[in-house]
This record gives sequence, structure tokens and C-alpha cells, in this order.
Amino acid sequence: MALGDAGGISPELSAKVIADADANAEDLLVIGDWRLLKRGAEQAGVSIDLPVLGLDALGGDLPSGSFMVDLANCDPDTLPLGEASVGGGLASVQNFRAALLAANAGHADAVFFTPFNKFAMRLAQPDYVDEIGFIDATIHPAESGREFNVLEEIWNARVTSHIPLSAVAGRITEQRVFDSLCLTDKTMRHVGYERPRIAVAALNPHAGDGRNFGTEDDDLILPAVKRAQDLQIAATGPIPSDTVFVRAMRGEFDAVMTMYHDQGQIAMKLIGFDRGVTLIANYPFPIVTPAHGTAYDIAGQGIADLGATRNAVNLGRRLALIEKQTSRAVSEESLSDLFTRALDPSTIWETRAS
Amino acid sequence: MALGDAGGISPELSAKVIADADANAEDLLVIGDWRLLKRGAEQAGVSIDLPVLGLDALGGDLPSGSFMVDLANCDPDTLPLGEASVGGGLASVQNFRAALLAANAGHADAVFFTPFNKFAMRLAQPDYVDEIGFIDATIHPAESGREFNVLEEIWNARVTSHIPLSAVAGRITEQRVFDSLCLTDKTMRHVGYERPRIAVAALNPHAGDGRNFGTEDDDLILPAVKRAQDLQIAATGPIPSDTVFVRAMRGEFDAVMTMYHDQGQIAMKLIGFDRGVTLIANYPFPIVTPAHGTAYDIAGQGIADLGATRNAVNLGRRLALIEKQTSRAVSEESLSDLFTRALDPSTIWETRAS
Repeated sequence: MALGDAGGISPELSAKVIADADANAEDLLVIGDWRLLKRGAEQAGVSIDLPVLGLDALGGDLPSGSFMVDLANCDPDTLPLGEASVGGGLASVQNFRAALLAANAGHADAVFFTPFNKFAMRLAQPDYVDEIGFIDATIHPAESGREFNVLEEIWNARVTSHIPLSAVAGRITEQRVFDSLCLTDKTMRHVGYERPRIAVAALNPHAGDGRNFGTEDDDLILPAVKRAQDLQIAATGPIPSDTVFVRAMRGEFDAVMTMYHDQGQIAMKLIGFDRGVTLIANYPFPIVTPAHGTAYDIAGQGIADLGATRNAVNLGRRLALIEKQTSRAVSEESLSDLFTRALDPSTIWETRAS
Repeated sequence: MALGDAGGISPELSAKVIADADANAEDLLVIGDWRLLKRGAEQAGVSIDLPVLGLDALGGDLPSGSFMVDLANCDPDTLPLGEASVGGGLASVQNFRAALLAANAGHADAVFFTPFNKFAMRLAQPDYVDEIGFIDATIHPAESGREFNVLEEIWNARVTSHIPLSAVAGRITEQRVFDSLCLTDKTMRHVGYERPRIAVAALNPHAGDGRNFGTEDDDLILPAVKRAQDLQIAATGPIPSDTVFVRAMRGEFDAVMTMYHDQGQIAMKLIGFDRGVTLIANYPFPIVTPAHGTAYDIAGQGIADLGATRNAVNLGRRLALIEKQTSRAVSEESLSDLFTRALDPSTIWETRAS
């Protein structure tokens, strides 16, 4: 568990989730600055009973159950509350990197983080574009990951994500839609859906309205859906995006695959703003975080809703249990070495837009 | 009131709303085929008590209160249920045109219609693109109209509408956004909002995320919002479109102005699928219809929800009362002549994409 941005609600949420019985947080490796977590506990009005180890103590026996590794990289007294700062961004980058390296080396089964702020992270590391690019540059996986938004009642996958709207249509190809369908099906089967029913949102209004408002739905998306159906994937579409979520909410589908970021996010946040989880899948371990942001406007007040954070921890744990069946080797590199590497400011990460 | 498409739920909704006490339908001029309305009443299980006049009877005294003009243009026994047909499309075009001509000539104060099916209308009139283009070609107004989606709790206006997604970004200009804001403000003030609070949705994910995912939000939308603010319009934005509706639903805004069709429609249908009204404003008279479609899948079953239709009639009436204060001249052309013109199949309409 990596502590998120210091300026927002992440310290408070981190403390709350550790103290929360429903999150079953009994085996967390908490990564970040102890002073920040303590501040979060004060904001939240909860008390935290957690062994705290410095980097130098990681060589010996580790505590059983949850413990914190204090990276001592983010003193809340030196940082502004309610806004982005270079110090908050740098600690976020370091905490995230440490968590990824620890999980990749087999020292953890899943990565969870409280919300980061991309703007703050870019203050510290200007080429930070988004999570996927950062993860790829950090652990060099065989395949890149994909973001899913998860509510109990519905999943949302997307074919494109953090790109300008003007670039969306050009990025939609039959192959991309087909690949996304296969990956969504695979990921959902992996977590227990026997045959996930996946609705595919149309790109254009009214699904192109018989080629009057665009041809991609007929020429690219429909053939991809048919190819997926030939593989026994329960795909349906393209369905006009203004009705597909209404139908899904009535129980017709388990997931909606959208063509672009806001097409899915508008719906998912309306359906469950305080409950949604972002899952980054297709890596050797699951990566989860609440779908909402750092909420600078309510930072420090202790009023942040824990729902999405609790759901994220629980989803991460559920997925990790499944992943564990395909056991991964534990690296030779120790936690101490990995975390020292994560803190090293001289490291240059290559990142890319996803 | 123009009868909508014969193959879907429009006959049933038309009959229900005439029979519905809450719709206060005591002064409707119902336009369409009497056999179709009767069929709708049978489907709905309601009885309709309404004077029915043929075209030849329009020369004499007209009944006070509601009455129907039977255009005898759509025999339900000759048409399939649950699908689009050229006969259903032709009658829709004729009914809509008759209603528009009647209102434009001052014989009615508002136009209301039950759902049309564009595909069916195009079977009858291949150049029918959308309502706005058809209205412009029918009544030749000084200015073109604009669609709003209206729920009791929130309005949605949009800068672009029935165009491919790939064309959206190219159509967003500062002037267009500014004009749309002014028109939205004007329309909402006109119907009674003292100073409507209008949120402006961003075009790109995360409002471009500091120019990382597109520049239109900073370069085009923000300056338009500032210009509107200079005119004392209560505009806010650009706001990321995945949170703007959540904030509006919490009471922060009266309206959300979106940049493209699905950006608003996804949200509006999730918020109130069975309640939403489409208002076409900026014409000499208001034009209203339920926001949902013809629902071919449940045609003839009598189960269609009347909510949106009732709301549409009530909004049309409310707006008509306001419009009446600026009284319009009644044309010399009689209803009989106007309706004969509307039925004439030799008429060629020019339509355009909006």
C-alpha cells in the first residue's frame, strides 16, 4: 500500500483504511512517510497500531501481519494542504515505485495506493504522463496493462484512455476493439465471472444512426464484436452509449466496454462516485486504487468517504488470492535494496502515453 | 400534437397522454390518423373521448377544447408492429410538418410529438437528417433552433449534436461555445430561471489535464466561459465531464453544457431515462418531445412509461404560456390548407445536418 498525495485526502484515507475492520487490512505493507500517515490518522480521528520500520531495519526479520516501511520522504509540516506540491508529487512517485518494485519482486501480492495527483507528480517528474506508462517503465512487463473501472454492479473497460478527444476516432481499429474485448473477457473470467456479458458502446451518437453520423460503428466495431462472438465471448454491440449503461444497470450486462475515457467515466461516476475502484490489470499482480481523486477541496477535514478505498483494498485482496495460484518467484533483491532504488532521485524513467 | 411512429410505442403514448389527467391535455390539436390513435388506445387500455374532424370539416367552426384532425394517412392494419416502415415514416413526416405549419401560422402555441423513428422517416424522405434541419426547411425561421434535454433537476445543452465523434473537436470554437452559452442562458431565463448556473463540460478527459490530453479546454472553452462571465452569465468551467454531472446533481448547477451528444446524453439518461424531455428552442414556438425513442422492442404491449411524455406536454404548455406574452399574428392560411400542404407528397424539403 503506497501512500498517495500529501495535499489531499490520501493521508486521511490511508489511516482510515488501516483502522477499518471491513477492509480486513491485516496484512498490509504500508509504504510512505510515517509522519504523513500519523497526520492522516489525526485528520481522520482514528488511531493506528502498526509496527513502523526504517529502511535500515528491513534486513532483519520482518513483523508478521501489517507493518509500515517509513521512507521518511514527506514531512507534512513542510507541505501545503489542499494543493499540489513538488514534495507531495515526489513522495507519490517514490511510494508508487517502491510498491511496484516490491510486488514485482514477489514481496507483495498486489499494489494498492491512495489517490495520487498527476500534476504534483509532474512537478517532481515532468515526464510522468499516467499510471500505465509509469508502471511499464518501472517493471518492464511483457505486456502493458489496462485500466478497468469496477463497481459491484458493473465493470467498465475502455479502448482508449488518456488522449485528446480529437485523437479517439483515429485510434479505434477493429483489432484494438477485438483485443480489448479479449482482454476484458480474460480479466473478468480470471476473477470469477464464468462468461462475462460485455456490452460494447458505440463510438458515434445513435451508433452512427445508419452511417449518418459516422461509419466506425458499422465498419470497425461491429466486425470486432463478431470476431469475439466467434470465440464464445459474450459480447453485444455496438450499442448507443447513451442507453448502454441504462441497460447494464437493469442487469443485462456485467461490463460495458467504452471507446474513450469520458464515455465510461461519466456513467461510472454517476452510478457510484464514492464506490468506484480503478483496477489496472494484465500485469503479474493486480494494481488497485479508488477511482476518485485527491479532493483538495476537502483535504484535512476528516470527512472523506472511505467506500471506494475499502472496495479497492478488498478487490486487490480478492484478485491477489486468485493470482497466488500461479505462484511467482521471489526475487533475490531485498526490500531494502528495492526501496533504496525507488528513492533514488537520479533514476530516469522513460514514460509513454497510453 | 403530432402522432409519432406507428411501429413503436407512440400510438400508445399518444392515447395515454390524451387520457391522462396529470398532463392537463384539455386543449390539444391532435394531428395524425384516427385509426392509429384508436389502436394506441386499445394497446394502452384507455378510452379517448375526442371530437375527430376530417380535413374537409376544418372550414367550419372548430370545437372548443381538444380535438383531432384525422389526416387518414396511416392505417395500422397495413403496417408491421415493432419495426420501421415507409408508411410509418411517411405519416411521421406529414404529421410533424402539419404541426409545424399550424404552429408557425399561429394556430397552435407549441408543437409536441410522440417519438419518431429517423430511419423510418428516411425510408419515406431520404434527405431527412434530424429534427432541426427538417424544422428549418419547413418554416424557414430567422434563426436555427437548438436542442435541450430537460429534467426537473437539470438541463443539458450541447454545442454539437448529430455528427460523428471524429468531427466534434474540429467543430468546437470559442465563438460556438460562447454562442451556445448565451443561447442557453437566454432560453433558461426565458422560462423563469433568474440567473441560471451553467456548468461547461470540458472536451478532453480531465479537462485536458494541463494540456497533456488536448488543448481545446484551455484555448477555446475557457476564453468562451470568461467572455460569458463578462456578460454576467453564471457560467463555470471547463469542468471534467466525468464529475460535472455529479456536481450538478448535488445542486451546484442548473444546467450542464456539453460539447457533444453522448457526453450529455449518457448522463441525462442515467439520471432520468423515463423522465427526460427534449426541447427544441429558439424558434417562434417551443417544440417538445420525450427524450426516449420509439422502443420497438415493447411496441403494442401497453407497458410504455408515460413519464417523459407527460413531462414534455407540461413543459410545452408552460413555455407556450410564456411565449404567448409576445403574441404572434395568426396567418391567413387556414388549417385545412396548411394540412393539405403538409400531406402533399410532391413537396421537396431541403434539409441539412445540424
